[in-house]
Amino acid sequence: MADKNKKVIQWDRRNILDLKDLSKEEIDLVLETAKSFKEVSKRDVKKVPTLRGKSVVTLFFEPSTRTRASFELAAKRLSADTINIAASQSSISKGETILDTARNLEAMNVDLIIVRHGCAGVPDELAKHLKGSVVNAGDGCRAHPTQALLDMFTIQERFGKIEGLHVGIVGDILHSRVARSNIWGLKKLGAKVTLCGPPTLMPIGIEQMGVDVSYDLNEVIEKVDVLMLLRLQRERQKDNFLPSLREYAKYFGVNKKKLSKAKKDLVIMHPGPTNRGLELSSEIADGDNSLILDQVTNGVAVRMAILYLLLGTKT
Amino acid sequence: MADKNKKVIQWDRRNILDLKDLSKEEIDLVLETAKSFKEVSKRDVKKVPTLRGKSVVTLFFEPSTRTRASFELAAKRLSADTINIAASQSSISKGETILDTARNLEAMNVDLIIVRHGCAGVPDELAKHLKGSVVNAGDGCRAHPTQALLDMFTIQERFGKIEGLHVGIVGDILHSRVARSNIWGLKKLGAKVTLCGPPTLMPIGIEQMGVDVSYDLNEVIEKVDVLMLLRLQRERQKDNFLPSLREYAKYFGVNKKKLSKAKKDLVIMHPGPTNRGLELSSEIADGDNSLILDQVTNGVAVRMAILYLLLGTKT
Amino acid sequence: MADKNKKVIQWDRRNILDLKDLSKEEIDLVLETAKSFKEVSKRDVKKVPTLRGKSVVTLFFEPSTRTRASFELAAKRLSADTINIAASQSSISKGETILDTARNLEAMNVDLIIVRHGCAGVPDELAKHLKGSVVNAGDGCRAHPTQALLDMFTIQERFGKIEGLHVGIVGDILHSRVARSNIWGLKKLGAKVTLCGPPTLMPIGIEQMGVDVSYDLNEVIEKVDVLMLLRLQRERQKDNFLPSLREYAKYFGVNKKKLSKAKKDLVIMHPGPTNRGLELSSEIADGDNSLILDQVTNGVAVRMAILYLLLGTKT
Repeated sequence: MADKNKKVIQWDRRNILDLKDLSKEEIDLVLETAKSFKEVSKRDVKKVPTLRGKSVVTLFFEPSTRTRASFELAAKRLSADTINIAASQSSISKGETILDTARNLEAMNVDLIIVRHGCAGVPDELAKHLKGSVVNAGDGCRAHPTQALLDMFTIQERFGKIEGLHVGIVGDILHSRVARSNIWGLKKLGAKVTLCGPPTLMPIGIEQMGVDVSYDLNEVIEKVDVLMLLRLQRERQKDNFLPSLREYAKYFGVNKKKLSKAKKDLVIMHPGPTNRGLELSSEIADGDNSLILDQVTNGVAVRMAILYLLLGTKT
Repeated sequence: MADKNKKVIQWDRRNILDLKDLSKEEIDLVLETAKSFKEVSKRDVKKVPTLRGKSVVTLFFEPSTRTRASFELAAKRLSADTINIAASQSSISKGETILDTARNLEAMNVDLIIVRHGCAGVPDELAKHLKGSVVNAGDGCRAHPTQALLDMFTIQERFGKIEGLHVGIVGDILHSRVARSNIWGLKKLGAKVTLCGPPTLMPIGIEQMGVDVSYDLNEVIEKVDVLMLLRLQRERQKDNFLPSLREYAKYFGVNKKKLSKAKKDLVIMHPGPTNRGLELSSEIADGDNSLILDQVTNGVAVRMAILYLLLGTKT
Repeated sequence: MADKNKKVIQWDRRNILDLKDLSKEEIDLVLETAKSFKEVSKRDVKKVPTLRGKSVVTLFFEPSTRTRASFELAAKRLSADTINIAASQSSISKGETILDTARNLEAMNVDLIIVRHGCAGVPDELAKHLKGSVVNAGDGCRAHPTQALLDMFTIQERFGKIEGLHVGIVGDILHSRVARSNIWGLKKLGAKVTLCGPPTLMPIGIEQMGVDVSYDLNEVIEKVDVLMLLRLQRERQKDNFLPSLREYAKYFGVNKKKLSKAKKDLVIMHPGPTNRGLELSSEIADGDNSLILDQVTNGVAVRMAILYLLLGTKT
């Protein structure tokens, strides 16, 4: 499994909290490592003994089917033992701090905690006080580093590179941890990033992250190599960020007609779950240019790589 | 484990959706294969490496403890990795189609999805679009093929045959996927089937499936070899199908007195969970003629056989 | 793994229901066995094949993250297959008795059921009718034997003995299964036990268990070697057992000032989850005298020992 000697030298990170912290070299290493793990999931026997006897806990304070399943499959294919804890944010109010919860898991000699929480910074707070590893599976509107890594893996797989590509990220940038993590990662790897969405969903001053901003999807479509669509969280609509879903779909939804002026090899990405008819038409979601299911496939490989780098190279 | 060469030749089915589709030979093969797997669960080490490295997902849109546990044990005893997803039907309304959910699981290289859903036809719809295998663990009022297979296994185990036996199915036929799947299977294997229940719970025209219908349990009891009682779902009582539970128990509940005119070797079956005092008295549920717990035991063996036939013979 | 021959001879218990039933020798054997298993969780590969092919079910009728995780980790580190069932007490009212649920699991050839239930006696009722093993993970206000065993293991680890020590148990004794199990266990091993708490939360006649009772924490603190604090279940406060949480914290909460007259090597224990600021201050919870996280660590070892003794020595 990969060139161990080389990797042990380069990787000394204990947690994956935010791509802001990772160097270009570290990101490259994750992507390279994921390549060899992608092959494992294609085998008849999708299992390697790499993390046998390691205990991995998913600690999800927000419901998630797909991300939890992706991590759980990744851990199981590496032969780790997995424990799922679906915690309600309200249980915290019963008196125990989240730190106590995590310390308890550590006291049980858990090697790695995969945490998702509605509040930004919770994974870092855990990591600060724990000896084991922490992987951020999404915290508030801040970071979702494994999603961005699998997105970059998917782009690199298709184009053979990331440097010099132009990526458009479309939708509710304001609330998107996926957007933030992708911006950090893509910029480090040399891509140009243009954000696009309604003004009410565009964070003020976001240009300081080194990105362009546009409010005109048609203009963006003509220029980019990758169009990364964000999930519109309908439950937020009550906050009046949008006049209507229909209007959102009209201006920021992607359909075949809008793509007529795009580059031939433009690819469409979406972190899922998609709202068909809203962020994109079914035609586009299921079309030749869509990498949406590749992203899901690569998610398992990238998460296997991360678990391996965090746990498998220790002795 | 069984005579592989023989079986690989006969079995080329990718899914188990409805016994309506299976041939007599295929059903026979499942029952025969289950025999060898039944022995595994009696061992001290209840585990064979048959499906090592396979990923099996239970995707349940209706709550179920026992069916899910039975499938999960079956998969684990075959050394497959299992992931449980308890989906609420409401989550589908959040924008993602069930097909997207399934495609995502397939993109994660899941080998087999065990699905239960309140709507008839959902497993078929999944199977139509997926490359992996689908097992129907109950869809609406339509089919519950693994339940019927374990029922037939249990009958065959007791009587040494199914052909020529007379099976009475008693209760809420209208809403019963268990009844429908048993009718398909039992008729294919040459049993005579008589349905019995209140007229309001008997589907109009059901005789076209090749069964007899009776509204008099006493009359049925005298003739049959097997009395298969259906669970009465109390939550349906509000729909006024029944005058009262008490009346149901009086006319269609089985107790010792009613069995006085039955054949000596009559057996009582029930898919569980039982309503003691309603469909049957405790005396009968726990009596010598009851095969209820055998059904549960055989459920694991039959499900192991199905997982093996769908996944284990591929190369 | 330990001296098997010796142990097979001594241990012939099928269930762990209540420490009331265990002899001093049996408790000693659990504690001694746990020592060798504690080492497993410190290894790089935290896994031994002891219970390979055994099926262990957690059947929890009360929500619990930490106890379930502790048992699940224990089972997985022994290579058992685990199935989690989170049952709602209300589902029982749907017609199936808890005994039917358990019999069904046994019919699936489950080797051991770990049960938690709000009603005292449920685990015993299950054990009476089942051939497999039952471990009580807490029943009502009556018993929580694995918690008491891990508490005793932790005390013995620190002091090298239990006999002759003086243990103070502080808090809501009335509702505490942890207190009851510890009293049974500690008395059998020769400790002196003093209970302390508000009069409204002290069971009448509890002295008959061979313990002292005090209503003055300061007085108790001066005398004891171990101070075992119980979780105050805030949800009970509506029953008016306490004037206010603030008053409870004032009289029965432990802080640095109150410990000034304590023995130098006094240790603080708590079954968790703690209510910081109520039963104890953060300073004390995280202080040098606190064994709270040791208890958690030892919980896995003790549960491994119990699973091993109940299942691993059979042939």
